[in-house]
Amino acid sequence: MEKTREYNMRPNRAYVRLSSLAALTLLCILLLAVVMAYAQNDPLPSWNDGPAKHSIITFVEKVTKPGSPDFVPVPERIATFDNDGTLWCEKPLPVQLFFVLDRVKALAPQHPEWKEKEPFASILKGDLKTAAAGGERGLMEMIMATHTGNTTGEFEQIVKDWIATAKHPKTGRLYTEMVYQPMLEVLAYLRANGFKTFIVSGGGIEFMRPWTEKVYGIPPEQVVGSSVKTKFELRDGKPVLVRLPELNFLDDKGGKPVGINQHIGRRPIASFGNSDGDLQMLQWTAAGSGTRFCLYVHHDDDAREYAYDRKDHLAKLDQGLDEANAKGWTVVSMKDEWNTVFPAKRSETPLK
Amino acid sequence: MEKTREYNMRPNRAYVRLSSLAALTLLCILLLAVVMAYAQNDPLPSWNDGPAKHSIITFVEKVTKPGSPDFVPVPERIATFDNDGTLWCEKPLPVQLFFVLDRVKALAPQHPEWKEKEPFASILKGDLKTAAAGGERGLMEMIMATHTGNTTGEFEQIVKDWIATAKHPKTGRLYTEMVYQPMLEVLAYLRANGFKTFIVSGGGIEFMRPWTEKVYGIPPEQVVGSSVKTKFELRDGKPVLVRLPELNFLDDKGGKPVGINQHIGRRPIASFGNSDGDLQMLQWTAAGSGTRFCLYVHHDDDAREYAYDRKDHLAKLDQGLDEANAKGWTVVSMKDEWNTVFPAKRSETPLK
Repeated sequence: MEKTREYNMRPNRAYVRLSSLAALTLLCILLLAVVMAYAQNDPLPSWNDGPAKHSIITFVEKVTKPGSPDFVPVPERIATFDNDGTLWCEKPLPVQLFFVLDRVKALAPQHPEWKEKEPFASILKGDLKTAAAGGERGLMEMIMATHTGNTTGEFEQIVKDWIATAKHPKTGRLYTEMVYQPMLEVLAYLRANGFKTFIVSGGGIEFMRPWTEKVYGIPPEQVVGSSVKTKFELRDGKPVLVRLPELNFLDDKGGKPVGINQHIGRRPIASFGNSDGDLQMLQWTAAGSGTRFCLYVHHDDDAREYAYDRKDHLAKLDQGLDEANAKGWTVVSMKDEWNTVFPAKRSETPLK
Repeated sequence: MEKTREYNMRPNRAYVRLSSLAALTLLCILLLAVVMAYAQNDPLPSWNDGPAKHSIITFVEKVTKPGSPDFVPVPERIATFDNDGTLWCEKPLPVQLFFVLDRVKALAPQHPEWKEKEPFASILKGDLKTAAAGGERGLMEMIMATHTGNTTGEFEQIVKDWIATAKHPKTGRLYTEMVYQPMLEVLAYLRANGFKTFIVSGGGIEFMRPWTEKVYGIPPEQVVGSSVKTKFELRDGKPVLVRLPELNFLDDKGGKPVGINQHIGRRPIASFGNSDGDLQMLQWTAAGSGTRFCLYVHHDDDAREYAYDRKDHLAKLDQGLDEANAKGWTVVSMKDEWNTVFPAKRSETPLK
């Protein structure tokens, strides 16, 4: 009997042990589920728990809560994003400048005169410093020489071919992988909450449209940018739009609100930028009635990306930083507030 | 027994009669249900069963059928509509011209010099014929004088106030009720099938945007039109966009594909117009690859609306009609293919 009892006890003890284990396992699973659910519910996993992340989520919750005094109807949920330095990396040079340089080299055989003509001559010699001495005028000359004279369809194909293979000189990653993961999450989070997301960039509108839908989920009709004039023509009965060497619109600084009004016809309720070139867009956004959201990405992360602000030549953030601080706009320290900068690597060369 | 039998029979006969009636009623209800279901399933009830209606439905079914060689993914389902004469009535004059005339009268006290200056002087005397002698240049002068110098916000309010009360001189209905019911149905039908619908009009972009969402379900960001230049300014620290007396863009004829490319950045797969001013838009649409749809509204209904085409001064449909016939585009006879022209009346004066 004793033995039997003991025998009988053993499975009982084992049962107790087993059930303790099961309970513990169950607890672990539950905890894991809670953590995972939390992680899944976190719309901005690449953002550290900090003031920037909180400000974004607070804003979105405010304007989407029915019955709240801050509620904004879906059609009016317009958010505008600068591109260079806000959605993707603009250092060591804005991506479109690398495109211009490559186009100068590609077109050089058809332009023997460029060997003697600045800024083309210096570009062809690889001397970017001398080429840059031509300033904005020289740059515009290069853009017109390399971006026009073809049809919109031809230019689109040139951009598509280039962007499919062109790589960042430092990281070796495709430029389309040099986008900011935290900002991709903001785009998706806003869209999931009924926002229409627009790009409003100083960059060329037709340089961006061929890839923004794939990379950012932003369709061509929601891209605002600088442009050259185009002209409708029938060529052998086939209609084409020819790109003319004449500036149509410069979508920078005070041009950004103009471009927003021209394309969107509604004032954004949220705007995202990273330089003084975006300041007027943020001012225009902030000046609307009701709850508004303005955010500056502050590049202060020399380890994972680049650090530049008040003294940068191409993308200065100086007056904007003062105004953001004075008005309580969100200023994102990349270093402190982003736990990830770029999406998971798909290409070979490590980042820095 | 006989009596009882008879008595017994009576309710039976009544029952038979009742059940016949019930069956008949049931049949009627069923038939009605079928008819109603058919009517509810008809996306274009104001269109008679004819070639135009069939062509629209055939096109939409083709491009939305998954697996079909004609299938078009949702993001590429772009449809563009002219406004004047295609979505709303443009006779006896385009609506914006009535707005210009009213603005000249409203602003005259601030412009004593207009009493001596054409075309203003003639307008103020009610002599439209002499005013019109100034042609396009005179018209542009009036538009600049009455549409600019204010901020975009001020102009929007002026348009909203005017459109809320201004009435068609012949029917006495609000201009926003002088829209074509069959075209409202096409807009809704396309949107229900994943299309984005855009207006592409020679009219002023900021004259249309304040009311297109309410009247057509087309939000401001999907309105393309002619525009004046605007300038960003800070007035007492408050950002404004000032409307300058300088043409920015004329969205007519060859300008329509230019405007489409600038705003939408995708070629439409369907376009709707009513005059030669829309021909280039239709050509641009038709020249894309895959199944395309082009439609001209032909104003041939002098009884219910207006009849005009090849010899009209303001909205000639001549070359377009030839090209539509040659290329097999849909030409809608308003008289034959629309069983309704305008939406059910809400205002007092009967139409003609």
